[in-house]
Amino acid sequence: MRELKIFSGSANRPLAEAICESLNIELSRIVLNTFPDGEIYCKVDEDVRGRDVFLIQPTCPPVNFHLMQLLIMIDSCTRASAARITTVIPYFGYARQDRKDEGRVPITAKLVANLITRAGADRVLAMDLHAAQIQGFFDVPVDHLYAAPVLNDYFLKRNLVGDNIVVVSPDEGSIKRASGHMKRLGGSLAIVDKRRNNALEVKHEHIIGGPIRGRAALIFDDMISTAGSIRGAAELLHEAGAIEVHVAATHGVLCGPAIKNIQAAPIASVVITDSIPLAEQQQIPEIKVQSVAHLLAEAIKRIHHDQSVSAIFGR
Amino acid sequence: MRELKIFSGSANRPLAEAICESLNIELSRIVLNTFPDGEIYCKVDEDVRGRDVFLIQPTCPPVNFHLMQLLIMIDSCTRASAARITTVIPYFGYARQDRKDEGRVPITAKLVANLITRAGADRVLAMDLHAAQIQGFFDVPVDHLYAAPVLNDYFLKRNLVGDNIVVVSPDEGSIKRASGHMKRLGGSLAIVDKRRNNALEVKHEHIIGGPIRGRAALIFDDMISTAGSIRGAAELLHEAGAIEVHVAATHGVLCGPAIKNIQAAPIASVVITDSIPLAEQQQIPEIKVQSVAHLLAEAIKRIHHDQSVSAIFGR
Amino acid sequence: MRELKIFSGSANRPLAEAICESLNIELSRIVLNTFPDGEIYCKVDEDVRGRDVFLIQPTCPPVNFHLMQLLIMIDSCTRASAARITTVIPYFGYARQDRKDEGRVPITAKLVANLITRAGADRVLAMDLHAAQIQGFFDVPVDHLYAAPVLNDYFLKRNLVGDNIVVVSPDEGSIKRASGHMKRLGGSLAIVDKRRNNALEVKHEHIIGGPIRGRAALIFDDMISTAGSIRGAAELLHEAGAIEVHVAATHGVLCGPAIKNIQAAPIASVVITDSIPLAEQQQIPEIKVQSVAHLLAEAIKRIHHDQSVSAIFGR
Amino acid sequence: MRELKIFSGSANRPLAEAICESLNIELSRIVLNTFPDGEIYCKVDEDVRGRDVFLIQPTCPPVNFHLMQLLIMIDSCTRASAARITTVIPYFGYARQDRKDEGRVPITAKLVANLITRAGADRVLAMDLHAAQIQGFFDVPVDHLYAAPVLNDYFLKRNLVGDNIVVVSPDEGSIKRASGHMKRLGGSLAIVDKRRNNALEVKHEHIIGGPIRGRAALIFDDMISTAGSIRGAAELLHEAGAIEVHVAATHGVLCGPAIKNIQAAPIASVVITDSIPLAEQQQIPEIKVQSVAHLLAEAIKRIHHDQSVSAIFGR
Amino acid sequence: MRELKIFSGSANRPLAEAICESLNIELSRIVLNTFPDGEIYCKVDEDVRGRDVFLIQPTCPPVNFHLMQLLIMIDSCTRASAARITTVIPYFGYARQDRKDEGRVPITAKLVANLITRAGADRVLAMDLHAAQIQGFFDVPVDHLYAAPVLNDYFLKRNLVGDNIVVVSPDEGSIKRASGHMKRLGGSLAIVDKRRNNALEVKHEHIIGGPIRGRAALIFDDMISTAGSIRGAAELLHEAGAIEVHVAATHGVLCGPAIKNIQAAPIASVVITDSIPLAEQQQIPEIKVQSVAHLLAEAIKRIHHDQSVSAIFGR
Amino acid sequence: MRELKIFSGSANRPLAEAICESLNIELSRIVLNTFPDGEIYCKVDEDVRGRDVFLIQPTCPPVNFHLMQLLIMIDSCTRASAARITTVIPYFGYARQDRKDEGRVPITAKLVANLITRAGADRVLAMDLHAAQIQGFFDVPVDHLYAAPVLNDYFLKRNLVGDNIVVVSPDEGSIKRASGHMKRLGGSLAIVDKRRNNALEVKHEHIIGGPIRGRAALIFDDMISTAGSIRGAAELLHEAGAIEVHVAATHGVLCGPAIKNIQAAPIASVVITDSIPLAEQQQIPEIKVQSVAHLLAEAIKRIHHDQSVSAIFGR
Repeated sequence: MRELKIFSGSANRPLAEAICESLNIELSRIVLNTFPDGEIYCKVDEDVRGRDVFLIQPTCPPVNFHLMQLLIMIDSCTRASAARITTVIPYFGYARQDRKDEGRVPITAKLVANLITRAGADRVLAMDLHAAQIQGFFDVPVDHLYAAPVLNDYFLKRNLVGDNIVVVSPDEGSIKRASGHMKRLGGSLAIVDKRRNNALEVKHEHIIGGPIRGRAALIFDDMISTAGSIRGAAELLHEAGAIEVHVAATHGVLCGPAIKNIQAAPIASVVITDSIPLAEQQQIPEIKVQSVAHLLAEAIKRIHHDQSVSAIFGR
Repeated sequence: MRELKIFSGSANRPLAEAICESLNIELSRIVLNTFPDGEIYCKVDEDVRGRDVFLIQPTCPPVNFHLMQLLIMIDSCTRASAARITTVIPYFGYARQDRKDEGRVPITAKLVANLITRAGADRVLAMDLHAAQIQGFFDVPVDHLYAAPVLNDYFLKRNLVGDNIVVVSPDEGSIKRASGHMKRLGGSLAIVDKRRNNALEVKHEHIIGGPIRGRAALIFDDMISTAGSIRGAAELLHEAGAIEVHVAATHGVLCGPAIKNIQAAPIASVVITDSIPLAEQQQIPEIKVQSVAHLLAEAIKRIHHDQSVSAIFGR
Repeated sequence: MRELKIFSGSANRPLAEAICESLNIELSRIVLNTFPDGEIYCKVDEDVRGRDVFLIQPTCPPVNFHLMQLLIMIDSCTRASAARITTVIPYFGYARQDRKDEGRVPITAKLVANLITRAGADRVLAMDLHAAQIQGFFDVPVDHLYAAPVLNDYFLKRNLVGDNIVVVSPDEGSIKRASGHMKRLGGSLAIVDKRRNNALEVKHEHIIGGPIRGRAALIFDDMISTAGSIRGAAELLHEAGAIEVHVAATHGVLCGPAIKNIQAAPIASVVITDSIPLAEQQQIPEIKVQSVAHLLAEAIKRIHHDQSVSAIFGR
Repeated sequence: MRELKIFSGSANRPLAEAICESLNIELSRIVLNTFPDGEIYCKVDEDVRGRDVFLIQPTCPPVNFHLMQLLIMIDSCTRASAARITTVIPYFGYARQDRKDEGRVPITAKLVANLITRAGADRVLAMDLHAAQIQGFFDVPVDHLYAAPVLNDYFLKRNLVGDNIVVVSPDEGSIKRASGHMKRLGGSLAIVDKRRNNALEVKHEHIIGGPIRGRAALIFDDMISTAGSIRGAAELLHEAGAIEVHVAATHGVLCGPAIKNIQAAPIASVVITDSIPLAEQQQIPEIKVQSVAHLLAEAIKRIHHDQSVSAIFGR
Repeated sequence: MRELKIFSGSANRPLAEAICESLNIELSRIVLNTFPDGEIYCKVDEDVRGRDVFLIQPTCPPVNFHLMQLLIMIDSCTRASAARITTVIPYFGYARQDRKDEGRVPITAKLVANLITRAGADRVLAMDLHAAQIQGFFDVPVDHLYAAPVLNDYFLKRNLVGDNIVVVSPDEGSIKRASGHMKRLGGSLAIVDKRRNNALEVKHEHIIGGPIRGRAALIFDDMISTAGSIRGAAELLHEAGAIEVHVAATHGVLCGPAIKNIQAAPIASVVITDSIPLAEQQQIPEIKVQSVAHLLAEAIKRIHHDQSVSAIFGR
Repeated sequence: MRELKIFSGSANRPLAEAICESLNIELSRIVLNTFPDGEIYCKVDEDVRGRDVFLIQPTCPPVNFHLMQLLIMIDSCTRASAARITTVIPYFGYARQDRKDEGRVPITAKLVANLITRAGADRVLAMDLHAAQIQGFFDVPVDHLYAAPVLNDYFLKRNLVGDNIVVVSPDEGSIKRASGHMKRLGGSLAIVDKRRNNALEVKHEHIIGGPIRGRAALIFDDMISTAGSIRGAAELLHEAGAIEVHVAATHGVLCGPAIKNIQAAPIASVVITDSIPLAEQQQIPEIKVQSVAHLLAEAIKRIHHDQSVSAIFGR
């Protein structure tokens, strides 16, 4: 069996360390600096020749820096003769740019997939991709994990299940996700029917389905960016009689006014995973971080040992 | 300006002829035979050297035959030194296999995209792809048309608009499409909330949204295969008090028990386009075919003349 | 040593089973269905991650279906992280379209080679390719087997050798093949000199070489399609005084009027291999099927164990 | 129309000049030197940016030098932004290494095709490839010319036609070629049935077909290398009563003992084309060179003007 | 002639505007925003279908952002069917990472070249690449300009020529560049012989060559980063009796302590080009910016019109 | 562990044998002939299926022959299913053509890298590449060795160190190399400042640095071609008072008048390695060959065993 080596980019070193702890191995050494002109310096500090290398790097903000750092790490390992390079991308930036909705725009998610492959990655391990079709943007094998069980656990432990709750999809595109959670947690289903005015602003309208009144509302999404739309949804749900509103999402991007929006909204808790690290100013009591380290660790172990990963699929 | 040449595979020659009529040019000659052992013989019967070639072929049933025929036509034109080959695929078969929902299955839509590119296609012109992300399965330029205006016209002409109607999404995945039609036609929005038991059978549950009673229900989908789910939806809507039920979809695949289902269901009309040709036994009074030939013709003309195609996007 | 996994497409499951029996292993499980619209569904039902996978699929009629099924199986195994995928193609459809004899035709055999490689095949195991140059259509390694020993055995056992026989090439292109058999079986050499009027019809002329009279004539070819040309050859040989006529070919495509032609012609036996399965109505007494399962099994075993395959080359 | 530029490598500058004369244009300037260590220096001495470039270079002996020179010329033109590069290869070296007849040998003809494409060639113009399948070794368009009419003209002018002649194939692989000439020139058909002992030596056996006696024998082949086998064939034909023996081949490689063999054999004339230039010591009276310059010139003109090349196919 | 379209990324819009002014055309419209999470949004706001597109973007700091923005612009134009995309990269970031001087480091300059090509660029226009070999990192055509004449002009106008000056190479790697300037400006040649202790710090030693005393010292380099080494060189030259020290470089990266170093050093002027824009705080009197807009404009014009670019090469 | 197989092309069989002796294994058998027409015949005579194959071939003169032979060997091993092919190229021909210094010239070093990769090489092991950037011409891993320690050893053993010597760079481009030797051997540094008039002739000017007088001058270069420039340098150094002049270079190309130049110059010894074999007439007393066989053997062993090669880097 070829030796397993796990390296972390600078995007989420705590997650990488937690994964290694879960696997009971040392995180391998790599030097990652930035020159005064902003160029990235990379030196892999352990021999990777013939090794089975995993590079852990969510491409979270600053996305262009983290993506480029990942590509440079791949190039280093390729040229250093790694036997196999699996890029572990718990959060895949640019995933929402996955189609051309108007003329003369890019499909940046596909571009990123092409760049990762061109740099020399042999495989990808991703989690809760914004659209499942992004797997098809790659010709190399992609293992796709779901954080849903980790999020469900939070609510199961707190007995937020069955008739106590209403599972809410914050928009039309997330109904399937909400349905999935409802299958596990029970409750009724509601959808926030919103109209998008432009790419950045959203105007909420009303709620379809329910019932809401007297229940805890659990909003599920794949990621929280500015928290603008969940703030609106929470307000709508609150007005509709929800006794408390919880939000759960795999990826806590939490950019721009996100923290302000969360604090201003009638939201009891925001449950996210550690796919993206929280900055210090983001560590507010409402935000409850659940770790996916053991999930990723298990997947890495199975990939390394040529064992089925489907078995730990979250669905 | 390089000369324009349009060839048709055997999948939908009437559509190709209608496109050429709309463009006021002759359909170019190509010999397409099948040897006794089923192998396809192809001979392009006009000079394509340095020409701007368009190959019209929806990959409708028998999908494997039509796809392979298209690939062989591409190979013939490539080797005959066509300047540019645009594959016009009004219906893109295998589009629903666009992701890995379970382990060890293919992403056949991506495979097909790779095959088309590998054979030598320079561009793709498609219509109402099952998922918009399929555009990203290609690295060559894709022009994507929407048949929605053609379908809307049918209802506008019959005054099935505004408070007369309820626009119905037959499942969670088509809500966005239904919303789009509602923006143009007015009315209220309803969703059939169904549970899929396995890949082929579907068990319907109930309707979210509305109101339904006293209105004409207009179900919109991208394609109709066995018509099983729209039969169920029509029955649900009928029970809920819809005064009549119409179904509209871009692609009339109409396979298996489709005709029987349509005839058995309380459906007033099934509005489809000619992206796929109707077999004789499929030509029943309920099915109303609207032509997209002029839409495709306009797109071909604009691609040929390097003019914007976004301008005729149906959205 | 990585585990060996053998899967069969639907083209020739009996051959795959015979190969597995010869190797004393189980045929691995794969689900291959067809949706009502003709699209192929594939699910590999055993873990192939890191395994050494062989996919057995002659691309015999219906060729486009079997080819596409093979490509989808390759895609499934690639995405499921198979360590190596060897496509075992005992009969390679479209092999006769291996050149451009006129302008604006495809080289479909090359196209097929490109598609197989693009889908993700790492290697090919083929048998009696129509033209040896087809090996060069691939950049991945091709192991090429010859069924000649299997066919020769049939005649050796029946003492159809030496001065008892005349070895006949049914056309100019097969003389080398006939010579090869003559080296092993003895006898004299004759060639049927025919003029091809068009791609489907053939007009026979006369025989060069011999002697014919008083001998058993053994016609050798790589494949039998409509059996039109061997019927003509058999009649010519019969008129020339051959005491009985036998036909031997690796691939029994036997399409169109093949069975009728064989039954109508003065042919004592048609010796073919099981590279292509016989339909029930094709199982007539004249047709003698010799199995190549052990030959393919041996090759698979050697490829799996990194042992020389040249050693079992049939020449 | 983009400007036409024709460059010649050092393999056959007289042919390139004759082509240009036929096209009434100047041969473009290129500096091709060899450094003292044998490395090739190349500088394109005219602007090729956006031009339609043709590079004329048969890969005749010294084949490795001429091939490498061609690749370097392609690289120069690619980097100098030529709009299109057509490699004109009247004689394609390594063509006989087009298959794997034994284990662990290369398919050098495919390798060469890959190298030419990798260097940046957009198209190939070839003549009388040893095997037609070599066209399929390329994915870029190949125009394939036949010198047969040029060779036939020589005999038509001398009334070596009809019952005066017997058309002879020097081996089994060339029967189709001989048949083609017979269709144009008339006469009977004979085949020299030879047994190849090893790759370099050949042992002739006997003649099949005829009649020979009292006729002029015309041996047709695609190339003459050491002239060993045609010497043997000529002797056999002479013994069989042929009144004179002529040999015709597209490519006069004429290496090793070729001139000695021709002079020693009962051969009246050796008709070849100028696809390969004759060295001074090869210019003996028996060798009659027919020019293919006008044929190549016409093909280049048609390719440049996007006109059909099939029309001048020699068959 | 296809229409010319010039777009600018956000790296150096003033340069793009100056180029367009020089060409007397409008800079084309493109929307380039940044979402709250740092992802780049791009929409090409003019039709580029069939156009000859030039994208101007030096990959100066922040290098990863500017590079990614360029790649996204390329993807947008490729998918919008631009006829040809030339990336104009006046300053090529990561150029110093062009080799592996130690084990397990990347060759980031090659990686960047691969990414640019993978994204869809058809050509590159660069200026004063750190190493000329970087041209070979691309397989697409590269036009390479030299800013030397622009820098020389500055000194020629001020009569800093001949015996008035000593041309100084700040290290061993730049001697060839210094020699080139000396050929045009005259004077003597000197080299600062330095020892590099680590990647970021440099310790100067002494000067080879000269004479220095009583002359103006002109230090030439390709880029100025932190200005640490030119500060040291200036001090050495000042001590050695230079009456004034000038520094000239194509690329003014000017990062980290650069401005402080320049102001602290005995440097009369720092002559750079506008390949990289100056931030406001960098606009100090010592820095004299010479524009290369006309040089780039002329190259773009010539590339667009298929005219030779070598003619304006600065050497 | 996969079995190691080492094959030698015909360029430097003695080196390959020395490497194998150092590794205590047999050189594997391969048949390499030349047909009468100059085409290379290759047959790998041992099973390489699944083996770890190393092909040793410096591309020294005749460079085009040796390069093509290497490519054919790679093709043979690829098609014979070698598990991994490492091309060991101790001397990399065409390395000086690594940039475009003028318009419309090739970058042949990049072309060669592309050809080697296209033929199927998985890795490269090189030594003292003319420019380190050539590593970046490959996307496959390159291990790069330095012969400097071997050359230094020669002088260390003869006490040509410290104040006894002056280390001389024969031109501006080799200063870095000379500095490297000086760090190990001591002494002072001098540079021969030459002006290159054209590609083949060089006119020397004068020496910068020193002191020279009374010291042994050690000129270091990467290769010696015609020995013209080192002859000039030696004469200059002799005139400047050097007590003896030694020349050391990794690669002894020694073409054209090299031997004459060496014998005519005041050169005490020319120290080279056996990266290129010496012809008999080149074996003059002044030339001292140091073997790099053990260095290459060690690298091969480490690559085969997935051990770090950096550890034996010569720097």
